[in-house]
Amino acid sequence: MTDELEVIAAMVKAAGKPPSGYTAIGDDVAMVPPRPGRVVMKTDMLVEHTDMPPGMTYRQAARKAVAMCVSDFAAKGTRPDAFMVSLGLRSGVGKGEVDGLARGLRDAEERWGTHLIGGDTNEAEELVIGCSMVGFAHKVVDRAGASPGDVAVVTGQFGLPPAGLKILMAGARAEAHFAQRARKSVLRPDPDIEVGVALAPYLTASMDSSDGLARSLHTLAKASGVGFVVERLPAAEGVMEFAAANALDADKLILEGGEEYVIVGTVKPTEIRAALKAARKAGGELIPLGRATERKGEVVRLTEGGVKDIRDGGWTHLRRS
Amino acid sequence: MTDELEVIAAMVKAAGKPPSGYTAIGDDVAMVPPRPGRVVMKTDMLVEHTDMPPGMTYRQAARKAVAMCVSDFAAKGTRPDAFMVSLGLRSGVGKGEVDGLARGLRDAEERWGTHLIGGDTNEAEELVIGCSMVGFAHKVVDRAGASPGDVAVVTGQFGLPPAGLKILMAGARAEAHFAQRARKSVLRPDPDIEVGVALAPYLTASMDSSDGLARSLHTLAKASGVGFVVERLPAAEGVMEFAAANALDADKLILEGGEEYVIVGTVKPTEIRAALKAARKAGGELIPLGRATERKGEVVRLTEGGVKDIRDGGWTHLRRS
Repeated sequence: MTDELEVIAAMVKAAGKPPSGYTAIGDDVAMVPPRPGRVVMKTDMLVEHTDMPPGMTYRQAARKAVAMCVSDFAAKGTRPDAFMVSLGLRSGVGKGEVDGLARGLRDAEERWGTHLIGGDTNEAEELVIGCSMVGFAHKVVDRAGASPGDVAVVTGQFGLPPAGLKILMAGARAEAHFAQRARKSVLRPDPDIEVGVALAPYLTASMDSSDGLARSLHTLAKASGVGFVVERLPAAEGVMEFAAANALDADKLILEGGEEYVIVGTVKPTEIRAALKAARKAGGELIPLGRATERKGEVVRLTEGGVKDIRDGGWTHLRRS
Repeated sequence: MTDELEVIAAMVKAAGKPPSGYTAIGDDVAMVPPRPGRVVMKTDMLVEHTDMPPGMTYRQAARKAVAMCVSDFAAKGTRPDAFMVSLGLRSGVGKGEVDGLARGLRDAEERWGTHLIGGDTNEAEELVIGCSMVGFAHKVVDRAGASPGDVAVVTGQFGLPPAGLKILMAGARAEAHFAQRARKSVLRPDPDIEVGVALAPYLTASMDSSDGLARSLHTLAKASGVGFVVERLPAAEGVMEFAAANALDADKLILEGGEEYVIVGTVKPTEIRAALKAARKAGGELIPLGRATERKGEVVRLTEGGVKDIRDGGWTHLRRS
């Protein structure tokens, strides 16, 4: 068992010595040196009973809370500069768990080159980790810039995290290597800032896919006043076989699973080759899915049986379906 | 009952049209136009079972979550520019409660001249409101600048919120007018940015007092390497009588109550008259308590019976006392 002052000490240790111009943890506010552009901000909250599946450690939960913000920064082509963390800890939380959180925040600092600059400790009925991130940009890719004819693209395949959740939460069966990849995609989500930054000059619109591919396509369609025709679903390797073995709807896993940390966006057809090259150079990939159309808000896919609606499914907090 | 998309709609309505240079709510990230100086940040979290006493509405809880950040900005003499909110809502939360939260955020925007620029909605086992605030300053008053001989000051009297908590949570008896003031101090905490900004040029060290006066004095003493002698306790009107009527320890109410939103700081003796004048001009007050001493970490008070230790009591999350 530990108390607030010990939690703060663990966080100060995790943060290390602040870089020049940044304040050390431990005053009422934190300060970050300015860089050119506007201030970019994002806040997100990890809540134990919805965001922390069985098998996820405190260390992984802390890293994931930061990943949730990084994912949005990546989708906007912006490097995160620093972040703060608000903790809601269960009464009686142990030193091992607190050290785990501190290590997870350190993991995040190292993975994404960003600085933990402060936070706040509270007591709550379940683990809650609020992450607030700050960065700088003159302009970010928004959701409203897609035009009919633009190529719809994603920076990775879909379905692995939803499969991982089925394995962790419902004991779904899977071949060992697939199970390992699927679990890892849930426990150590890995949004890629470098790919986001490299792609930003080519994206006409973009967002992340933490609520699922279908939701991202519908949201971009509404914001941009376009529709989408999807020519092929971006299924991660092994997802079709996993779905078949567990009598699950593969299309639903790919379209509505959520917990994905892939960028969904649009690129002008004349720019697609340059964008593909830029993504590869940054160590990532870019997968064309289909096209934006003039049919506002209509998101459909081509199947062997013809055109089929993609419904606006996916994760909606507080919704009972 | 309501869902995430309806919550977002209520927040967009509360935020209103964004000022020039600010992004509207509804993209992956928010943007704030830069002002001169470094970026100042604070994050805090309101958790229902520790921070929301019986009788507090959702509207008041939302306003309080912002007040918790404003209090730190005020203590540092910095105007808040904008804020984001992460909500953890109970499953089955109603439209009335969500509208209450939105109205409370609007109240905060109007009271402190700051802008709601975005947020995040989640499901949690109790109400959780994370607030992250951003502003700009070249320099802020820190906790480490007090020197022996400096005058210890506060910007208000103490004991009213702890009395209010006793009334709301334990049914303590109180005279009607006092009870009303005490309850209001808990339900509508009112940190004063104008007083903080006016005082900043005179403060050698400062912090807020949300964990109680004793904790603030000990924290400033440790950070600055000084001690404090308190000559008189700053008791709010009626607190002594309230304590006596309810057989409570008045000193403890004043020193260790917490939930106070007053600035505690130090001022050079040669500056104290100018500081008093500046506080009054900003519509506030400044109360000298005593002096900083050379006795590192030692916080004492003068009583009729002689010198008495002030222990480092106050609110510590997760501590069982």
